[in-house]
Amino acid sequence: MKVINLDHISAKPLLPEVKEVMIGAIEKDYHNPSSQHKTGEEAAAALQKAREAVADLLNCSTPKEIVFTSGGTESVNHAIKGVALANEDKGKHIVTSNIEHNAVMRSLRRLKSSGFTVTSLPVDSSGRVNPKDVAEAITKDTILVSVMHSNNETGTIQPIEEIAQITRQKKVIFHSDAVDSVGVVPLDVNKLGVDLLSFASNTFYGPAGVGGLFIRRGTRIFPLLEGGVQENNKRAGAENLIGIIGTGKAAGLALRDMDKRLMHLRALKEKLLTELPNSIDEYIVNTHPDYSLPNLLSISIKYIEGESVMLMLDDENIAISTRSACATGSLRASHVLLSLGLSHADAQGTLVISYGVDNSKEDFVAFLNALKNVVSTLRDISPLYQKAPKT
Amino acid sequence: MKVINLDHISAKPLLPEVKEVMIGAIEKDYHNPSSQHKTGEEAAAALQKAREAVADLLNCSTPKEIVFTSGGTESVNHAIKGVALANEDKGKHIVTSNIEHNAVMRSLRRLKSSGFTVTSLPVDSSGRVNPKDVAEAITKDTILVSVMHSNNETGTIQPIEEIAQITRQKKVIFHSDAVDSVGVVPLDVNKLGVDLLSFASNTFYGPAGVGGLFIRRGTRIFPLLEGGVQENNKRAGAENLIGIIGTGKAAGLALRDMDKRLMHLRALKEKLLTELPNSIDEYIVNTHPDYSLPNLLSISIKYIEGESVMLMLDDENIAISTRSACATGSLRASHVLLSLGLSHADAQGTLVISYGVDNSKEDFVAFLNALKNVVSTLRDISPLYQKAPKT
Repeated sequence: MKVINLDHISAKPLLPEVKEVMIGAIEKDYHNPSSQHKTGEEAAAALQKAREAVADLLNCSTPKEIVFTSGGTESVNHAIKGVALANEDKGKHIVTSNIEHNAVMRSLRRLKSSGFTVTSLPVDSSGRVNPKDVAEAITKDTILVSVMHSNNETGTIQPIEEIAQITRQKKVIFHSDAVDSVGVVPLDVNKLGVDLLSFASNTFYGPAGVGGLFIRRGTRIFPLLEGGVQENNKRAGAENLIGIIGTGKAAGLALRDMDKRLMHLRALKEKLLTELPNSIDEYIVNTHPDYSLPNLLSISIKYIEGESVMLMLDDENIAISTRSACATGSLRASHVLLSLGLSHADAQGTLVISYGVDNSKEDFVAFLNALKNVVSTLRDISPLYQKAPKT
Repeated sequence: MKVINLDHISAKPLLPEVKEVMIGAIEKDYHNPSSQHKTGEEAAAALQKAREAVADLLNCSTPKEIVFTSGGTESVNHAIKGVALANEDKGKHIVTSNIEHNAVMRSLRRLKSSGFTVTSLPVDSSGRVNPKDVAEAITKDTILVSVMHSNNETGTIQPIEEIAQITRQKKVIFHSDAVDSVGVVPLDVNKLGVDLLSFASNTFYGPAGVGGLFIRRGTRIFPLLEGGVQENNKRAGAENLIGIIGTGKAAGLALRDMDKRLMHLRALKEKLLTELPNSIDEYIVNTHPDYSLPNLLSISIKYIEGESVMLMLDDENIAISTRSACATGSLRASHVLLSLGLSHADAQGTLVISYGVDNSKEDFVAFLNALKNVVSTLRDISPLYQKAPKT
């Protein structure tokens, strides 16, 4: 049974080449990269090769600026808690935005209970932070600014370069959660000007549960996982070498195929935006028309629940989500969508359509047909729709 | 080129059955276990199956007591920092031992800089903590005791049950770092009486970079990685499902084959202890004769450096270590061996011989022959040996 995966934001498939190197690593059965005998050295060489591939993808000054982690969440926790604890002698104020991922929000909530204060900035109705607000929010006590590169629910991209100009001028450390951007859009840590950047391997078709943190040389930060001297003494613990080898391969492919993928994804997005009005009416597009990821479109369909759409599309073998998988289980309306100014009712009707290199225009034809039927069926039984003024 | 792996403490090979399920998971390409559509449910079922296998291995009351992590180091950091921060309103004193792994020691050092105090208990010359010392060290401010189950450099096993009786009576949370014990020796969290237990998958021939933390129901602890609601809200972040599936398989095999493996490992240890005197003289056995792991023997060979032995054995295609791979790169003498009362010179002559189900008596014959030659060669050029009184 083939399932059409339009829920790439939750999980992307491994590329065949990534599968191949991961299976190769399992069969090879590497020793511990920290061991000093020759089987250890072989493992260390494989680890280094992967680190170089990721450093190339991000255009780091040196591979030593890359720390492998167990994923985007660990990277974000490491960045935020690590900077806060290492710099609290300088001040205990942090600036962020209202639309960050839970990993950022909950890390900050933890710090608040240890006496840190946090200024959380609004976004405009298009979902973007105003760099001027960042400048105004920074005080003498500010040690960290954390603003995401792209939002995982809307795909909207933030003005990171402009914010970095401000943080550099004010000598404040700048972290960007780029978990949904790295490997999808071209991204150069030196051009961006960030000090810390979190990323996840699965975003560029590597394995889930692997990610990394770019730490610019000289950035004052404590490790989150402490113990051994792995990862240049920045992240202790035996490495998930199989996953890291897959990540290195995926990073290399992302860099090599970036332009080709962008062209494919933009064509898909164009198709989706053009065809949607032929399938449904009365919906809101939450994704920024210009500043956004090419592989995600968030829409809020009026008078119905996204959850019901998701379940009915699942019956048609189409996987889609209403928000990030990380927040599944929470019944509250998305803080991201409410920050955009959506009503609770409209927020409940949201679908996140996220796709990738493995999707085709035919997938969208099938999706749009199914969506048309599902929305029509749901609206037929929707009391909200019955009461709504017809246009 | 076949290398004889007598450095299992740094890396154990994956079992063929573990490789098979991991390759199967890569080929299957699971979706995100948190996603609510049916491909997500398939992934969630695979995750649950692995959790149940690990819970069975440890005889947990419910699989919910198992939290998967990125390895022993994360588990230890989670246990220690998570308990400390969640209970600091009750007190800020922690009791530990002098021979803990760096993951424990460095987590505690971090807490000390936030105002916690730590009492670190000595071990006797056989390497064991005295439970009476634990009882005496506990004050009204004590919130946590952390004593390892077995030591990673000597293999000596601690009196965990006796310590747990004390912590239960005094209502103090008890964590044991059992990273080198779980899956090697029978271990039942309810019989042991611990509240938290850290473990690593590779110890029982699962993949490196995967581990877990047993958290007894009702234990007050904060997550270390915060964000999404994965792992029953105790550890955020997309799961390393490929590694976790391998871990579940490895746990099932460890439980099934425990007796058979113990018999094999004990026979190997017996052979090693019996034959060693025929190969070398003037060495100290650091491993406890009765309370110790069956798969590790630590010896300190007088007048020579373990590092040189390791490198020369490497030339003979025998992998061995002088201490845990986590501490490689540090030139200081092992704090564990010094705690046993060894001199700096003797500590430098230490070899950790660690082996597993894939080793045979023939491996030991080859090792003992090579060791004899290497030690003789090194002593011929050792000024210490020339000056030593001959027996």
